[in-house]
Amino acid sequence: MTPYDRLKEIGLSLPPAPEPAAAFAMAVAAGDLLFVSGHIAMRDGRPWTGQLGGSVTLDEGRKAARAIALDLLATLHDQLGDLSRVRRIVKLLCLVNSTPSFSDQHLVANGGSELLLAVLAERGRHARSAIGVAQLPLGACVEIELVAEVERRL
Amino acid sequence: MTPYDRLKEIGLSLPPAPEPAAAFAMAVAAGDLLFVSGHIAMRDGRPWTGQLGGSVTLDEGRKAARAIALDLLATLHDQLGDLSRVRRIVKLLCLVNSTPSFSDQHLVANGGSELLLAVLAERGRHARSAIGVAQLPLGACVEIELVAEVERRL
Amino acid sequence: MTPYDRLKEIGLSLPPAPEPAAAFAMAVAAGDLLFVSGHIAMRDGRPWTGQLGGSVTLDEGRKAARAIALDLLATLHDQLGDLSRVRRIVKLLCLVNSTPSFSDQHLVANGGSELLLAVLAERGRHARSAIGVAQLPLGACVEIELVAEVERRL
Repeated sequence: MTPYDRLKEIGLSLPPAPEPAAAFAMAVAAGDLLFVSGHIAMRDGRPWTGQLGGSVTLDEGRKAARAIALDLLATLHDQLGDLSRVRRIVKLLCLVNSTPSFSDQHLVANGGSELLLAVLAERGRHARSAIGVAQLPLGACVEIELVAEVERRL
Repeated sequence: MTPYDRLKEIGLSLPPAPEPAAAFAMAVAAGDLLFVSGHIAMRDGRPWTGQLGGSVTLDEGRKAARAIALDLLATLHDQLGDLSRVRRIVKLLCLVNSTPSFSDQHLVANGGSELLLAVLAERGRHARSAIGVAQLPLGACVEIELVAEVERRL
Repeated sequence: MTPYDRLKEIGLSLPPAPEPAAAFAMAVAAGDLLFVSGHIAMRDGRPWTGQLGGSVTLDEGRKAARAIALDLLATLHDQLGDLSRVRRIVKLLCLVNSTPSFSDQHLVANGGSELLLAVLAERGRHARSAIGVAQLPLGACVEIELVAEVERRL
């Protein structure tokens, strides 16, 4: 099964790849590593705003992280032409817009990690850090960046 | 002297390697780089909770960072089989659970940096960023992730 | 045109390279990657303090990020001997000391991104994450770390 087969099986399709909102690139390759810019959570084409521990529930946060993971896959597809060129998702940094009392950032991050595993299987298993931040660009509730190891050519 | 000799000399021994609390891996290798997941501070087998500038003093924060560095060494040992395969600790990201008025994150981070230097000597000297975050998973007071350069085989 | 010609053209010169304030290195190389430590904003030789959304305006934050980018270039020059050895700025992490209501971290980060583009041209175009943090070392308003791909020898 390819990553595309698995996406189809769980009823998802890749959205258009996000475009950078400012003076930077969505991803830059160095050797076999691809560094992917932080992607903020989007819903209905607009930033998915709010804070965990405040206006955003844990379940919503998990869904926001899952939505970002789908956008990250769209970016990887756009950069590589084929998700089969992803040899490994190496590292995720999951930033959760958090009130000072919210401490389930790891559970929010799982929403993203689990989608990567579902679509890329063992190649999707990554190292990770999850942290609670004071605020994110455009008020987004979650932001995720990643490093992937890729085949330079298929 | 090996890293194990130096550990013994300063009266420390490696704890069991931490296991991932969620859908991710403790470390993933890509080429010669090993990306290690964020490790949160633990004390007596439980998350070492609290905020710098609040319930946790600078000295406690430094000790928490030192405890994490020991756990990171345990993870490196577990992943590599031998700490002598660490060619260099390349980069640390030290996340300090901070009240808005606490600005000694670099001093907290030193607790971890200094242990890595003591155990790995010049191979332990790393680039680093220290930042103050709103909250961390399970309420931990400090979290550290790292990138190491490793020998693929000894 | 070299990076030095472009610096001159925009009326800037490299400051002395910053020195580490604690137990770490300003940069560590691994293969073709150079991991550069977080640099905090400085003004008149002292930490440029304050919070975006509070005592620091968006325009000041942008200037602080630009000042850091110049310091990062000074560090790259110091490490490499020649900025022409920078093959690519790969990834920036831009940390913005933010009140809970400030959500223009990406606009602050642009101040740094745009200077790197101006000095290094397309080699300066990078992946990036911008986040709002509770506090930074020494009360700095902005901190930026980066990963660059470099020529091992010219």
